[in-house]
Amino acid sequence: VVLRVSSHVIWYTALSMDGRIADGQDSLDWIEAIGPYEGSGTEFHAFLATIDAAVVGASTLRWLLRGGHGWPHGDLPTWLVSHDPGLVDRVGPTEAPFTRVEGNLEPVFEAIAAAGHRRVWLCGGGDVAGQALALDRIDEVVVTIAPVALGKGPSLFEGLALPHRTFQLAECRPLGGGAARLRWERARG
Amino acid sequence: VVLRVSSHVIWYTALSMDGRIADGQDSLDWIEAIGPYEGSGTEFHAFLATIDAAVVGASTLRWLLRGGHGWPHGDLPTWLVSHDPGLVDRVGPTEAPFTRVEGNLEPVFEAIAAAGHRRVWLCGGGDVAGQALALDRIDEVVVTIAPVALGKGPSLFEGLALPHRTFQLAECRPLGGGAARLRWERARG
Repeated sequence: VVLRVSSHVIWYTALSMDGRIADGQDSLDWIEAIGPYEGSGTEFHAFLATIDAAVVGASTLRWLLRGGHGWPHGDLPTWLVSHDPGLVDRVGPTEAPFTRVEGNLEPVFEAIAAAGHRRVWLCGGGDVAGQALALDRIDEVVVTIAPVALGKGPSLFEGLALPHRTFQLAECRPLGGGAARLRWERARG
Repeated sequence: VVLRVSSHVIWYTALSMDGRIADGQDSLDWIEAIGPYEGSGTEFHAFLATIDAAVVGASTLRWLLRGGHGWPHGDLPTWLVSHDPGLVDRVGPTEAPFTRVEGNLEPVFEAIAAAGHRRVWLCGGGDVAGQALALDRIDEVVVTIAPVALGKGPSLFEGLALPHRTFQLAECRPLGGGAARLRWERARG
């Protein structure tokens, strides 16, 4: 008997007041609108320490590479959703497996669960999050809302014919530095 | 000597988790994801009681008219931003003046201030809010975030080449019924 245990997928990201994860130039510079606050350095790392695997889209990875960042989470088993094989070469060697996939996300989540990874960080972007939402595979959404309005750029979820998905508000508080922390858990059934 | 006092412009609206003010079908049905909570009936009316004038865009008004709602705030002096003269006829008679304008919003805000209206409700939609933001005439943003993700639809601010605008977080709390209340005030200078 094989007991299949699903992973818990968390979409954790920064957001503008108008719900965007990047501006019209695909930049994240606006995050600097968040002032310094106590715990800002440790909060994200504390989250990361609970994570077993990552899923990242091509746009998000390209943005990191353009900024000369590389893939900063090479210690996490990572699945890249992209049609571009060249992207993997640009990432270079990583500590943990870095796997490129294309097409439907469902087998990706199955492979992650089969590998025994329990907590999965969906680290961008809005299209991948939209696909995951369409499959109803988003279990938790954690956003840090910066006090800035952008007017253009991809939203937290992007999808043409997405069914509306209802969540439960689990957290809502000022985080410091003018940022707001909101957290939702998927309300199923 | 004429002392010109600017109005205080408040963009007060409901928002999805992904920062949208309507879904892909221009519907607001998703607001029902907010459960009943104490004060839900009086909260909006308490806000309205502080308001002296309203600015509304064509899409928002058309949505109200399609739903058979008419213009529910006929007691407020209202400026409609629209190129369509027929829209005014569809609204019919109102208690307070209902004025259609087109083009730049700057003279609209000037006319509102000249008429002595101090607190102005910008009641939609994202394009009008984007234009007002571009003019730096948004003083306060008040949103009720519903615990639902849409994936498509206009965002809180829509504008092609909008300068990023920084605000100060003034309020961040659970409102009840799964909704979150966030309020920002424009940080100028």
